[in-house]
Amino acid sequence: MIFNVLTLFPDQVSGFLNVSITGNAVNKGLIELNTVNIRDFTEPDDKYHKVDDTMFGGGTGMLMKCEPVYKAYQSVKDKCPDTYTVFVGPKGSRLNQSKVIELSKKTSLTIICGHYEGIDSRVLDEIVDEEISIGDYVLTGGELAACVIIDSCSRMIDGVLPNENAFTIESHMNGTLEAPQYTKPQKWHDREVPQVLLSGNQALIDEYNELSSLYETLKKRPDMFDKLEISREKMEKLLAFMRTI
Amino acid sequence: MIFNVLTLFPDQVSGFLNVSITGNAVNKGLIELNTVNIRDFTEPDDKYHKVDDTMFGGGTGMLMKCEPVYKAYQSVKDKCPDTYTVFVGPKGSRLNQSKVIELSKKTSLTIICGHYEGIDSRVLDEIVDEEISIGDYVLTGGELAACVIIDSCSRMIDGVLPNENAFTIESHMNGTLEAPQYTKPQKWHDREVPQVLLSGNQALIDEYNELSSLYETLKKRPDMFDKLEISREKMEKLLAFMRTI
Repeated sequence: MIFNVLTLFPDQVSGFLNVSITGNAVNKGLIELNTVNIRDFTEPDDKYHKVDDTMFGGGTGMLMKCEPVYKAYQSVKDKCPDTYTVFVGPKGSRLNQSKVIELSKKTSLTIICGHYEGIDSRVLDEIVDEEISIGDYVLTGGELAACVIIDSCSRMIDGVLPNENAFTIESHMNGTLEAPQYTKPQKWHDREVPQVLLSGNQALIDEYNELSSLYETLKKRPDMFDKLEISREKMEKLLAFMRTI
Repeated sequence: MIFNVLTLFPDQVSGFLNVSITGNAVNKGLIELNTVNIRDFTEPDDKYHKVDDTMFGGGTGMLMKCEPVYKAYQSVKDKCPDTYTVFVGPKGSRLNQSKVIELSKKTSLTIICGHYEGIDSRVLDEIVDEEISIGDYVLTGGELAACVIIDSCSRMIDGVLPNENAFTIESHMNGTLEAPQYTKPQKWHDREVPQVLLSGNQALIDEYNELSSLYETLKKRPDMFDKLEISREKMEKLLAFMRTI
């Protein structure tokens, strides 16, 4: 899968993604990360490489101009004609794990990052397939959102994670939150690992983790819990579980 | 405001935040960014600086151990006794702009980043004031979420943005999405800037932008629109506006 990122801060994006899981995926050739500096696409006679200008109507701050963004996009489109183009911005549909899985199936994703006050709407109307927001908060630029999309999508691609089963039990993968997890030592600061996890009885452990996961979801994200379909038998087990903790 | 980030990838966090708005805020002394490498707090006799171990109960992958996280936290707590401690993880309450504003009022924020399969629950139970999630998707580590919190909070601190009014008209600051924005040239690819924005009549421009902002919210985020309190007069103006576009 090819990720193209159009940005004024290419080092911010590549610096972040060139380590850990995504860095390994690039090195193994499982994903390709191509950052494009929008500033390289200003007019040839503009020695200041000016990418922004004041807003019509008198708003505060500077807005990124259409043409450099458009030309940067064309340079990518020439190489990846079928690329799916996403603008990361506060008005987009909110990213969730279903959307991540959907995006991870594209062969090429081009992500456009605004900065400062944003980008002239006209170029976005012309080239963007979908606007996506990573959450209801204000960020300085789209670069963090681009990293979030690339990191989360990469994890869904075969071979990127060391163990292909690793991601199926993560929080949000099946609409629940993960059970609390424990590693050595068995006792830390008077806090003990739940006995059942030490029992070696995998059926008991699996049931405990499932109920513990449901309990976490009920306690911390009742909105997610309400969307689950839970059998009457499981519900009774959950109630019994909650009396033991 | 002091931000401490406990992480296995300090360069990822500082590399990202040392540019643009947050980089300038650090240089001006408006915020202090202190990354702490959890790996520096392993046992002195452990030449491999092992921070993780297998999970009790047989889960896939490695979990970060309690003690290095706890010692890294203590090193911060010694310097900032009143610090507010956040774990960024998928089970947390979801970050939104109100939470950003609330966090930006703390004098010191300590953010703990998990990586791999996460962190032993016991140390989080012991030291964390609040668990926060930036969205319902799975990421490789908490580092991106830490950057999101620091970037969004920094913008709320006096003097960080070049113009103190700049942030009040952003999307999500008042429960609406921003109106589309335009810069030069007036005509680009047969797309014209709306005439009213060129009129020089600020009262007309302000009304246009307000209605345009309401329309964007209605179209793209009906859930946000439903929460607005809009007078009957404004609603009629919005309906009239929608007939003109």
